[in-house]
Amino acid sequence: MSGNRIDQQRRFIVETDELKNVSRRTRPIGQERRENSAEHSWQVALSALVFSEYANEEIDLLRVIKMLLIHDIPEVDVGDVFHYDKDSTADLASREAAAAERLFGLLPADQGEDFLALWHEFEKRQTPEARYAAAVDRLMAFLVNSGNAGGTWREYRLAASKVLEKNSHAADGAKPLWILIERIVGEARKDGHLT
Amino acid sequence: MSGNRIDQQRRFIVETDELKNVSRRTRPIGQERRENSAEHSWQVALSALVFSEYANEEIDLLRVIKMLLIHDIPEVDVGDVFHYDKDSTADLASREAAAAERLFGLLPADQGEDFLALWHEFEKRQTPEARYAAAVDRLMAFLVNSGNAGGTWREYRLAASKVLEKNSHAADGAKPLWILIERIVGEARKDGHLT
Repeated sequence: MSGNRIDQQRRFIVETDELKNVSRRTRPIGQERRENSAEHSWQVALSALVFSEYANEEIDLLRVIKMLLIHDIPEVDVGDVFHYDKDSTADLASREAAAAERLFGLLPADQGEDFLALWHEFEKRQTPEARYAAAVDRLMAFLVNSGNAGGTWREYRLAASKVLEKNSHAADGAKPLWILIERIVGEARKDGHLT
Repeated sequence: MSGNRIDQQRRFIVETDELKNVSRRTRPIGQERRENSAEHSWQVALSALVFSEYANEEIDLLRVIKMLLIHDIPEVDVGDVFHYDKDSTADLASREAAAAERLFGLLPADQGEDFLALWHEFEKRQTPEARYAAAVDRLMAFLVNSGNAGGTWREYRLAASKVLEKNSHAADGAKPLWILIERIVGEARKDGHLT
């Protein structure tokens, strides 16, 4: 491949194909295998579209969906870390930032800088779009685990209080989605899927 | 679950989770397993974003990405049909249309009608957005197979002429992507991956 623009873009898509091979803890509903970060990224982007009316603030939906399509791409280099292990994983933020630079750096410079800025915006949760995108990202495990007889909540014997505490920032992006999360947690406690 | 709006939307996301279980012929680069339609949907939406500058006509990118996030959802009911078997698969169009009605019908009526109209727009390829979305969808197998030592082209002993003929409508949506496809086919013939 030469170094021209479309070949750089081709290389980026080929290299990020590896996201299909990054395993998360969650299992697709009714399946034994773990889900991968590529199919999760589809589901969270679709959900952002479906639930957009619930954003707390006015949002640019295209910007949200762009963020969600690329939010896990650094995992191509660093893998996925279980949401409840993030605080205890050394250097995670700096390793992910380095991976983002390498991977978005495969693109033509203007495009790579745009994607890298979007990725940082998502991570910082300081804009309406980033707050809403984070809320939808948090909602995913609730929809999948509750459709899966408790899923990873049961597998890792998680407590309802911890699950609520670790995801409470969803309320900053979309209050109705937080209320839905609280309702799902209530159902899961009743069913014994959360302690 | 009650019949209210957010519960209908929740049900839709839970039901379409099954797209992670719909197998396509293509294999992710370097993997033995087949890819599924959910991870393909992520990759095609990401690619629409990356290659948007090559659309032949002015496009509403959000509309394109929406189309691509939902374009395979009817496969939850009818499964994926290999691109080169589509003409010989009886009633495929009508079975997919019925599946689209059922699945998008899980959503609140206004949203379901919007999604159903977008799905039909994609299928008909009569708008700039649908033509561009189709071109990007066609490009995917070329990027993945060429990154995979021929992939399904080798597995099914496909001819370069057939592959070009069956995907030529990509030129209607994005000429530079069609030129890239022709270049990839040329590489694949040289490498013996297409006959």
